[in-house]
Amino acid sequence: MEVSSKIFAGAGADALFIEQDFIRRYLTGFYSTDGYAVVTREGCTFVVDSRYFEAAEKALKNTNIKLVEGLYKQAEALLSGAKTVGVPYPFTNLSRAETLKKNGFALTDCMPALQAAMEIKTSKEIALIEKACEIAEDAYLSLLPEIKEGMTESEVAALLEYKMRKFGASGVSFETIVAFGANGSVPHHETGNTKLKFGDAVLIDFGCKYEGYCSDCTRTFLFGDDKKHEDFKKVYAQVLHAHELVKEKTVAGMTGRDSDEIARGYLRTKGLDKYFTHSLGHGIGLQIHEYPVLAPKSEQVLKDGMVFSDEPGVYLAGELGIRIEDSVYMTGGKVKSFMKKTERNLIIL
Amino acid sequence: MEVSSKIFAGAGADALFIEQDFIRRYLTGFYSTDGYAVVTREGCTFVVDSRYFEAAEKALKNTNIKLVEGLYKQAEALLSGAKTVGVPYPFTNLSRAETLKKNGFALTDCMPALQAAMEIKTSKEIALIEKACEIAEDAYLSLLPEIKEGMTESEVAALLEYKMRKFGASGVSFETIVAFGANGSVPHHETGNTKLKFGDAVLIDFGCKYEGYCSDCTRTFLFGDDKKHEDFKKVYAQVLHAHELVKEKTVAGMTGRDSDEIARGYLRTKGLDKYFTHSLGHGIGLQIHEYPVLAPKSEQVLKDGMVFSDEPGVYLAGELGIRIEDSVYMTGGKVKSFMKKTERNLIIL
Repeated sequence: MEVSSKIFAGAGADALFIEQDFIRRYLTGFYSTDGYAVVTREGCTFVVDSRYFEAAEKALKNTNIKLVEGLYKQAEALLSGAKTVGVPYPFTNLSRAETLKKNGFALTDCMPALQAAMEIKTSKEIALIEKACEIAEDAYLSLLPEIKEGMTESEVAALLEYKMRKFGASGVSFETIVAFGANGSVPHHETGNTKLKFGDAVLIDFGCKYEGYCSDCTRTFLFGDDKKHEDFKKVYAQVLHAHELVKEKTVAGMTGRDSDEIARGYLRTKGLDKYFTHSLGHGIGLQIHEYPVLAPKSEQVLKDGMVFSDEPGVYLAGELGIRIEDSVYMTGGKVKSFMKKTERNLIIL
Repeated sequence: MEVSSKIFAGAGADALFIEQDFIRRYLTGFYSTDGYAVVTREGCTFVVDSRYFEAAEKALKNTNIKLVEGLYKQAEALLSGAKTVGVPYPFTNLSRAETLKKNGFALTDCMPALQAAMEIKTSKEIALIEKACEIAEDAYLSLLPEIKEGMTESEVAALLEYKMRKFGASGVSFETIVAFGANGSVPHHETGNTKLKFGDAVLIDFGCKYEGYCSDCTRTFLFGDDKKHEDFKKVYAQVLHAHELVKEKTVAGMTGRDSDEIARGYLRTKGLDKYFTHSLGHGIGLQIHEYPVLAPKSEQVLKDGMVFSDEPGVYLAGELGIRIEDSVYMTGGKVKSFMKKTERNLIIL
């Protein structure tokens, strides 16, 4: 069964109306800034304007997806006869909802059905995420020797983003975080004009997109060792151990909470759990944050084909921040990392 | 009167509930990835979580905006007593709408009131857009001598984006378009792996963000003159004339349609109007596409303080594409360009 038919069957609607670019891409495999995927009992139709029509024709040749040249009007016309239309509530704005309701359609949320499909990646999707991870790692490795004293966080971020593009990424999967010294103790530090000094800890959280799919990685290292880093090194080893434990002990059938607790529980034995102020991980795919959620309250069950981050962190306000993150996936009931090239052990530049 | 009170007065609601980052920034002047601005008869309250609280406290010190540490729950609590809550329909998703309705609030669209305020820029906003334009121009000028035969479109785009970041931008305002040769004839060409050859026309559409505000600029030039460019040069001069005519003849009180017609009408006299396949321009501000719209059907009236693009283009499928775009603003009833450094006359690299 085609993926769109499976989602249709689970949505409890007479038709699905999809205009979000990443969901369209998921259903059709084709990317365009604008367009509509309409799914009914008869199958999936993709409506796209003249700018994209030729490329879409080529891309959809060997699929069962019908192609129609047009705009919103042509897409809405395909809903004719439907009473209940499924749209993904978290990504559908009220202006669109008002238009559909005014034109006689009742709306229902098809996000649960979409999510059930999208959270399990196909081998093709896994390969694209793997490539996005490889590009990010290659860029990072090429960045390291170019990091010099006096560079700002913004310069390092810009250089890394440039390198990811150069290695084949279409863009970043989120705004690169570069934090020098104590700035690392703010988990979502805004990359700024702080200059790099000898002895600084450096935290870099980065990722890119390849054919729409995201990678996500964090590395923390020392820019020279000023011999004042005994505490840092101790905590680093503990965060790394938490990170590796998650990979070892997370198995299919566990909940996101169970997996989170592997890291959190270990850090608790070291008195560090209160400094681990965020979730262990999040799903990764066409969006940088999707399902499953790995957090203290998550009841989502981990399954083969899921892709997520393993990112424990410890933050001591004004002192230090350490986060070690891989993008990983579940296969054969176990966790496997996409990150194969960059060092997780502490490096001193 | 504070801007939030003015918008409140125009919205016909008991309270405004704003969670979109760019609108929050507009109302408070403070940027955070998460947070809520709640506006009532009593004024504006900003709700933000612990990650941002300290920075927000500092930023809002000399304003009348109240600050509360919290999450969605704390923000919704501020709506207590309100019957009708204004949210911007084009930017509010159905999940949020469902939650607010379930909790007893009727919703109304406050986007028209927001738009009426946001389309007229303050002198501070004008200065920020001017800076975003200056950074984009500096980056472009620094890029030109580094463009070499054999580079791909993606490489040129990545290099320009890196330079914009290096010159002080926080990021791009949209995905940079670089089109070599006949690729330029697709107005929204997807930057790819085409390599630059001697004699190619090069179209670059680029812009960056500075403190949230966007710039937008397009330049078309020749990478060497292979003496096969007589038609290109003729059309270039005509597109440039259309571009300059718009600046000369657009005055306050005209509609977006009137201004569009200045360019379109001139191109019509040259038989080129059918190849000018998009609108003349769009508003620019915290978003890259906002009000006013300058297009054949736009009845929006141009006023002092508006910022928009002037971007006529001519596209001959498979042959050539020429677009010349400045970000401009209206002051003293006339149009003034932000672009002061880059050449609009045809250059041959």
